[in-house]
Amino acid sequence: MMNPADQSLFEDLTGKPSPAQRRALAKIITLLESTRSDHRTRADELLNALLPKTGKSFRLGISGVPGVGKSTLIETLGLYLINKGHRVAVLAIDPSSSISGGSILGDKTRMERLSVHEHAFIRPSPSSGTLGGVAEKTREALLVAEAAGHDIVIVETVGVGQSEIAVAGMTDLFLLLQLPNAGDDLQAIKKGVMELADLIVINKADIDPNAAMRAQAFITSSLRLLGFQGNPDHATHQQDYWHPIVMSLSALNGQGIPELWESILHFQKLQIANGRLQERRKQQAGSWMWERIDAGLKHAFRNHPEVQALLPRFSAEVNAGTMAASVAARRLLEAMGHEFF
Amino acid sequence: MMNPADQSLFEDLTGKPSPAQRRALAKIITLLESTRSDHRTRADELLNALLPKTGKSFRLGISGVPGVGKSTLIETLGLYLINKGHRVAVLAIDPSSSISGGSILGDKTRMERLSVHEHAFIRPSPSSGTLGGVAEKTREALLVAEAAGHDIVIVETVGVGQSEIAVAGMTDLFLLLQLPNAGDDLQAIKKGVMELADLIVINKADIDPNAAMRAQAFITSSLRLLGFQGNPDHATHQQDYWHPIVMSLSALNGQGIPELWESILHFQKLQIANGRLQERRKQQAGSWMWERIDAGLKHAFRNHPEVQALLPRFSAEVNAGTMAASVAARRLLEAMGHEFF
Repeated sequence: MMNPADQSLFEDLTGKPSPAQRRALAKIITLLESTRSDHRTRADELLNALLPKTGKSFRLGISGVPGVGKSTLIETLGLYLINKGHRVAVLAIDPSSSISGGSILGDKTRMERLSVHEHAFIRPSPSSGTLGGVAEKTREALLVAEAAGHDIVIVETVGVGQSEIAVAGMTDLFLLLQLPNAGDDLQAIKKGVMELADLIVINKADIDPNAAMRAQAFITSSLRLLGFQGNPDHATHQQDYWHPIVMSLSALNGQGIPELWESILHFQKLQIANGRLQERRKQQAGSWMWERIDAGLKHAFRNHPEVQALLPRFSAEVNAGTMAASVAARRLLEAMGHEFF
Repeated sequence: MMNPADQSLFEDLTGKPSPAQRRALAKIITLLESTRSDHRTRADELLNALLPKTGKSFRLGISGVPGVGKSTLIETLGLYLINKGHRVAVLAIDPSSSISGGSILGDKTRMERLSVHEHAFIRPSPSSGTLGGVAEKTREALLVAEAAGHDIVIVETVGVGQSEIAVAGMTDLFLLLQLPNAGDDLQAIKKGVMELADLIVINKADIDPNAAMRAQAFITSSLRLLGFQGNPDHATHQQDYWHPIVMSLSALNGQGIPELWESILHFQKLQIANGRLQERRKQQAGSWMWERIDAGLKHAFRNHPEVQALLPRFSAEVNAGTMAASVAARRLLEAMGHEFF
């Protein structure tokens, strides 16, 4: 049972767009970011109550190295979509937040016009916790933003690590933003990130259109070389499935933004028709549950007194090669009271 | 304390090459593959006793799709190495073993001459268990084979899934065997496997030398395109670090085998000199321990009565979108007696 204050937050959130709705959205996200267990209990009740009102947005993940123009793209695309009648929420996962206290979206002046628009909601990355914890808060915030009627949710991250996997794992489309460089500079794409991308967008095409064109051709051919384009399992239904594409635009002057949105709509249409959108969301929910269970089990393990007493010595022995890793693992699990497996 | 029978196994294993040593090796591996907990206790004691005698071999991982010629390569390379005075052990991880009961190396006639050689030891993949469990047994068998004085240990797997990660995670060099096809057929390389490879070898170069040459050029350029060759962090010390290379050979007629071995020796020399061999082994041991701890914790979780009572319904609700994944995870952890985290 929700307390009356939470009941009223719930009603404000799921009601008509209004300043009260914005306040409720911010308050609920703050509640679920709290580390107090009474807050956590209230947040869980709110989340479960909100759940039937979620899932109706398109979830767009955007990643790219610092300086690639993510904020500019989000501002330009966000305003373009608001003009078309959409309501846009922007969330972020900052992988450095556990060290630095967070930077992405922390400075709202980076999206000056979008951040003050009544049909936009911008929330900085949770500013502490492990990457898994930060990602969890963002996933939950995404659900709350959907329940508040935002029909486009953008989740931003920087292209410097595991956070791309987290963002691709909570969005319908993962967009990788690239600079108009090619050749050696393509190394800037982290291993394993290219294969997460549904759409690769080369920004700053206005600065040097030829360089952007070369980069586009270059990335397209490298996708093809590694077999990321086209799926042999569906050779006869190629047109029914999405294959990653590369396009270029200028986020600064808006050139190419309508074409980008058209591609995203085409992606959405295909993925709904072939069932992959629903399938992807189902898998994401399952993975999310198990990821949190894993994190919780490991937390309990690390905090078990017997484990705490043994782990440093065992780790050192495994590292030094004086204890077999499997033996160390079994002894630690036994110390925690778990049986052989 | 080891019982007298295990003490005598230990002495046979670590003594001079002999039929008794071979029998001890096979018996200890059987012991550690056993699911009986008294066997497990004995195997753990043996493993810890053996550990100081391990680590002195070169560990070579080999993967490739069925039909690429893995057995032929292992037979040819193995006999070549035995002629040079080495003692070779061949182990396997069959990712399909939990379903089919195992196939890799199950049929020893695939390596007719090697399997009967007194300086070779061939052990099929453990034939049951999860991939994690199978990989664990193989890692342990690798240590036992080293303690028996094999100075080259080859671990084979098929290129059809997660097993490549397991093999790359227990060997010093991961070799990916390819067919002399290019272009569209390069799709046969699973996403994420290319970046594990230290060496890519195109087999069957005797059938169509031109095709092999084209494939070699093709794979080389795709490695370069994706930045897998050359490390900008060490631009001034390029020659001190290994960068993946592509070569072609014929395992059937032995052409290119000496060159392959030369490249492997060059790899080994560099990795020892720059410290990466030791670093890789240290990381592998640490990852192995945590992987087994994770597996043990998840096993305990799944077998907890409260969890078993709730999990099916919660999983279904998360899949159906009627319960938030994070809420389900927290409630299951609470049911197991773990506190909030």
